[in-house]
Amino acid sequence: MNLVELLEHARQFAIERDWEQYHSPKNLSMALAGEAAELMEHFQWLTTSESEREALSAKTLSDIELEMADIFIYLLRLSERLDIDLTDATLKKIAINAEKYPVELAKGNAVKYNRRDDE
Amino acid sequence: MNLVELLEHARQFAIERDWEQYHSPKNLSMALAGEAAELMEHFQWLTTSESEREALSAKTLSDIELEMADIFIYLLRLSERLDIDLTDATLKKIAINAEKYPVELAKGNAVKYNRRDDE
Amino acid sequence: MNLVELLEHARQFAIERDWEQYHSPKNLSMALAGEAAELMEHFQWLTTSESEREALSAKTLSDIELEMADIFIYLLRLSERLDIDLTDATLKKIAINAEKYPVELAKGNAVKYNRRDDE
Amino acid sequence: MNLVELLEHARQFAIERDWEQYHSPKNLSMALAGEAAELMEHFQWLTTSESEREALSAKTLSDIELEMADIFIYLLRLSERLDIDLTDATLKKIAINAEKYPVELAKGNAVKYNRRDDE
Repeated sequence: MNLVELLEHARQFAIERDWEQYHSPKNLSMALAGEAAELMEHFQWLTTSESEREALSAKTLSDIELEMADIFIYLLRLSERLDIDLTDATLKKIAINAEKYPVELAKGNAVKYNRRDDE
Repeated sequence: MNLVELLEHARQFAIERDWEQYHSPKNLSMALAGEAAELMEHFQWLTTSESEREALSAKTLSDIELEMADIFIYLLRLSERLDIDLTDATLKKIAINAEKYPVELAKGNAVKYNRRDDE
Repeated sequence: MNLVELLEHARQFAIERDWEQYHSPKNLSMALAGEAAELMEHFQWLTTSESEREALSAKTLSDIELEMADIFIYLLRLSERLDIDLTDATLKKIAINAEKYPVELAKGNAVKYNRRDDE
Repeated sequence: MNLVELLEHARQFAIERDWEQYHSPKNLSMALAGEAAELMEHFQWLTTSESEREALSAKTLSDIELEMADIFIYLLRLSERLDIDLTDATLKKIAINAEKYPVELAKGNAVKYNRRDDE
């Protein structure tokens, strides 16, 4: 199943329930941020190594999987609502990042990496 | 380009820069939540109708597109790091939701919808 | 009870439970962002007018109150951990904002306001 | 300066600029979550020990201080808009937590702590 089919699935679900009326871009962006925070809460008291797959319980991993699905569903819904092609956008962003962080400068440069949001 | 190819693209980008070391699930979940909040900030002072595509400037729409790409990139990276199939997870979640919110009960039921996170 | 006393209360609570070890600034910032998202989730499907006090149920208002307390507790804990005076910081920030958004330019200027994060 | 005076300061600032119209509880909750995520982004690629005060640069610490002020300002604004007493709410929440996590059970119990959000 490809991205377009998944998106259509998520859209049908909302239409059948008459939920399109709640799905303004503003509200969808809130729902997306909310789900992303819920995902993050699974990791907040763990060390980075405790957050790796092999250290997580089956229950936690399954919860995480469903949180990630929620994020993806809202991302797809928003892309449809704003008529944005998620694949195109992603390739465009990777190209921008490649120019901003050339391999020779970025490689193994933790300081650079840590500060990249400040620039 | 399908999801697996996109994911591979995002992974190559990180490997070439030696950034895998920063991409623990914990850190990726933080980055994802951060990007989701940045996306949301574009909408925070707008009314719901001002948040619709036709009301947004080309510049804002383009910024939003790139924020959505950032979210997707981190979601793909996390799915790879945790070995989670995003398509499977999404179909599974839609099935769970379909059972939780049957059409006949959920349809046009705003109260139900608004409270669904309280349950 | 003033801010310093509240902060001391929150600190004692953590110390008694030996939770200081989990309360690195990194982890506290995640917990704070998580609680802020939980607060926001109460409002995500509401219209702006439905989000006003008089439109909320007593139960929702009470939930919101406790989410706000969670945010405040983590904010106090972080300020203590980083040795930041929250009152001073706030007065400093209000002074910075006053310079950035002078009354004569900012007044009733929605466009300006909406774009202020883009600048 | 106490909490009520700080709150009054933040309120005057908004009134003078005619910004009250944008400050519905819904919008304030979004702004608060956005600022909390911005705060968190300072820590996302750091290890927990790199996130401690002594390891942060003066510039980063100053940025963090102002992000925390932003969070506090929106929290105060929301408390005023919803007529919630932040001090009372916090004491109430600490009392609830004290009952939920009694010292003798919670002390040094990482597993319990890590899972406390799952309960």
